[in-house]
Amino acid sequence: MKPWLGWMLFFLTVVAVFFIGLLASNIMERRTEAQFLDRDKIDVQPFEPRNEVWGINHPKQYETYMATSDTNFVSKHNGSKKIDMLARYPSLVVLWAGYAFSKEYNQARGHYYAVKDVTDILRTGAPDENAESPMPATCWTCKSPDVPRLMNNNGVKEFYDGNWAGHGSEVVNPIGCADCHDSESMELKITRPALIEAFNRMGKDINESTHQEMRSLVCAQCHVEYYFNKEKPYKGVPYLTFPWDNGMSVEEIEAYYDAMNFSDWTHGLSKTPMIKAQHPGYELYLTGIHAKRGVACADCHMPYKSEGGVKFTDHKIQSPLNNVSNSCQVCHRQSALELTNNVNDNMDKVISVRSELEHLLVDAHIEAQFAWSKGATEEQMKDALMDIRHAQWRWDFAAASHGGAFHAPIETLRILGTGIAKAQDARLKIGTVLRKLGFDGEVPKPDLSTKELAQSYIGLDMVELNKEKAEFLKNVVPIWLEKANERESQWTQYEMAKAVKY
Amino acid sequence: MKPWLGWMLFFLTVVAVFFIGLLASNIMERRTEAQFLDRDKIDVQPFEPRNEVWGINHPKQYETYMATSDTNFVSKHNGSKKIDMLARYPSLVVLWAGYAFSKEYNQARGHYYAVKDVTDILRTGAPDENAESPMPATCWTCKSPDVPRLMNNNGVKEFYDGNWAGHGSEVVNPIGCADCHDSESMELKITRPALIEAFNRMGKDINESTHQEMRSLVCAQCHVEYYFNKEKPYKGVPYLTFPWDNGMSVEEIEAYYDAMNFSDWTHGLSKTPMIKAQHPGYELYLTGIHAKRGVACADCHMPYKSEGGVKFTDHKIQSPLNNVSNSCQVCHRQSALELTNNVNDNMDKVISVRSELEHLLVDAHIEAQFAWSKGATEEQMKDALMDIRHAQWRWDFAAASHGGAFHAPIETLRILGTGIAKAQDARLKIGTVLRKLGFDGEVPKPDLSTKELAQSYIGLDMVELNKEKAEFLKNVVPIWLEKANERESQWTQYEMAKAVKY
Repeated sequence: MKPWLGWMLFFLTVVAVFFIGLLASNIMERRTEAQFLDRDKIDVQPFEPRNEVWGINHPKQYETYMATSDTNFVSKHNGSKKIDMLARYPSLVVLWAGYAFSKEYNQARGHYYAVKDVTDILRTGAPDENAESPMPATCWTCKSPDVPRLMNNNGVKEFYDGNWAGHGSEVVNPIGCADCHDSESMELKITRPALIEAFNRMGKDINESTHQEMRSLVCAQCHVEYYFNKEKPYKGVPYLTFPWDNGMSVEEIEAYYDAMNFSDWTHGLSKTPMIKAQHPGYELYLTGIHAKRGVACADCHMPYKSEGGVKFTDHKIQSPLNNVSNSCQVCHRQSALELTNNVNDNMDKVISVRSELEHLLVDAHIEAQFAWSKGATEEQMKDALMDIRHAQWRWDFAAASHGGAFHAPIETLRILGTGIAKAQDARLKIGTVLRKLGFDGEVPKPDLSTKELAQSYIGLDMVELNKEKAEFLKNVVPIWLEKANERESQWTQYEMAKAVKY
Repeated sequence: MKPWLGWMLFFLTVVAVFFIGLLASNIMERRTEAQFLDRDKIDVQPFEPRNEVWGINHPKQYETYMATSDTNFVSKHNGSKKIDMLARYPSLVVLWAGYAFSKEYNQARGHYYAVKDVTDILRTGAPDENAESPMPATCWTCKSPDVPRLMNNNGVKEFYDGNWAGHGSEVVNPIGCADCHDSESMELKITRPALIEAFNRMGKDINESTHQEMRSLVCAQCHVEYYFNKEKPYKGVPYLTFPWDNGMSVEEIEAYYDAMNFSDWTHGLSKTPMIKAQHPGYELYLTGIHAKRGVACADCHMPYKSEGGVKFTDHKIQSPLNNVSNSCQVCHRQSALELTNNVNDNMDKVISVRSELEHLLVDAHIEAQFAWSKGATEEQMKDALMDIRHAQWRWDFAAASHGGAFHAPIETLRILGTGIAKAQDARLKIGTVLRKLGFDGEVPKPDLSTKELAQSYIGLDMVELNKEKAEFLKNVVPIWLEKANERESQWTQYEMAKAVKY
């Protein structure tokens, strides 16, 4: 044998082993693909709201989506349990006096509960033939893939127009597939007009977004600050609108609302024209380091998962702290314990400052109420009330953003710091008013240390509210669900969906 | 040739190439070492304070150390220029009324200027045969490697005892080699007793620190919060002490000072018993993510550098923003521009909140002064003054930490947020006092928009102070330096050091 033959032999072996590897991997892939193809694929109709129908084609995504029903995760500062936040933080009752949030406010649970939780909560009231819900139809917008279906069938304006109870039998499938996906291509899709319209007003075309941007923008359809514009584009219709025309910072949105003299409600104690922050999660996230490094919502809340050789996006949307190995640890090399401690350390700090602002706002509302009772005039109170408005807007922006303490702790603390200054400014101004009114004592402070005391102080009849709600859930909701079932039973793939569902 | 010979040939070639590589790298190393050995090494004496003597053995470290004289770096929020911070932030004059910082306060420059800047500044006064410096000898502790020399020669207590001017001719070499290194082994070394003593009181032995910990601890000899304890361990001697017995957080150190009724001075306007935060850089750094990830001060402020094939620690201690490629980019893969923008974004936010607190503190001092003028009693003012004390302590802790906005923006913002609440609490309490005193107007606010206006308001005669200082610099300092030169000329290696110096 010639000496170069040895070399050639070696080279050929290497090449051969490489190709055998390639082949083996190829066969494995084909096998898992074949497992999929074993199930008959179906044609999902456009605007199909039933998640279980989509689930026939995408069982792994569907199964993980269904796992958003899991309520077992409890972390130091959040989790998936339904927690009575008014009991935990009775100050909130005072902060929201005169507004439905003071009746009931719970820790948000998984998407699976979106329809149930908005139906069960006292905030939506107990509508029946004798009573209207205090909420407009627009409140359903973020709760269900029935929404794009209804908007497509009846029109966007028509969807927003009317009372919450009006869609009771129409909106029954919880947030799911059709909210973010195109039924044919399965591509990510913006289904809610408010986000598209907000982009347009900012001179942006949402269709030019990259796939990675879309992995956050589908979430930004709902996890944002919004309000119901009853002036535009249709007089009297509470049109869902994102207040981003000046920009997305707490100050820019505040200026937007101030310029239009907008208020969500007038505070029950201080008479302040209040702005209720919704959940400006996307806006705050954008200011944080993860967004700046191009990390999308889905990267951490829906990380890739592997099962039986198949890699897919985990649709159990949840706190990444419940899934550190697949979320944080993809980029960070520290232990799950260390990473969790880091997050909790930051949250502790943010929550301690938020808490401080919370208590100052309670004081401000109570002191303003006292000044009114001593005969203060609107002219005297005007500036103080504006400070309360701006301080509570900052508190709410930080508190309601959910995850702001993680996504953007620095911006959140900046917001809270300025909020504290403004809450105290309000109290200083009220002090000056009291001085001018000749009052030289201390403002009496009621005991507001429990949810019950606070709710009673602001004048809520909780027994009556709970009674009405129980009757509504017993008598009205079953009729809604029956109607919905009748409707869906007329649709194609009804039996198939039923088979998956039950 | 047998077939296995081909394989063996291949294997041997691989092994040979590996060893040739090893050999080449070894030769390169020896060559650079030889370049070093070309210069005669000298025996540096223990406690040798002259950096240029150490520089004979370690030219690269010395040359980079000397580059701390560079004053060309200007970033958005810091730099190496001497900037008049009172002119930039006139509020500081009011915050420090009655304290020497209100006379002059500049942006810190490189270690090279340590002795010159403390000599030049108005805070140390204009001592001569007729006048004492307002500062004790202890103020020299962090300025020079002459300090360990003096402490070794005369004793620690004896060093701290007496007036600043007493060491004028003894402390002449700026912060350098002997402050952090053992002259024989060149190992890192703690040369200042305060850090060792603080560790002892916390039940820790500083000698058990790892090398990586030492790369921060040598900095922590000076870049920390401290005070002069005139009670312990020696009555009447301002003994440099770190207030860490309860812990290192802003609240724990505050509790330490409160428990001993300590105050640095009584405020000139509000009569508040104040605590001056020094520069709790190490304490704040420990709460940040870089410390938690094991990054030492030296990793970013003295990163490794390569010159002529030699790798060494860059002793041009400076802002890492002036050296992003060797500091940040060792771990972070983003562009220098992006990283710098990230840091500046955070600093902008922290500084905006700090600024808010600054203005509220000015208001609090002015309003307290006004209440006194209206006849308020000590009993009435007590609580408000305690709030001012705690609020300004928080502001100062955050502001004086230098780099806190980078090292630990979240903790810094937490501190500032609670500071704002307390400053406003003080103002509310003063408002109540004014109400009780029958005053129902607005507290008049003087124009304090420039350093000059502020200094005049608090009663400083700047013309006189500057005149005295000029005379001191002209008449006294040259004598100090002459004496020092005489002393050093008696020492070994004098000519050698001179050759390097000039």
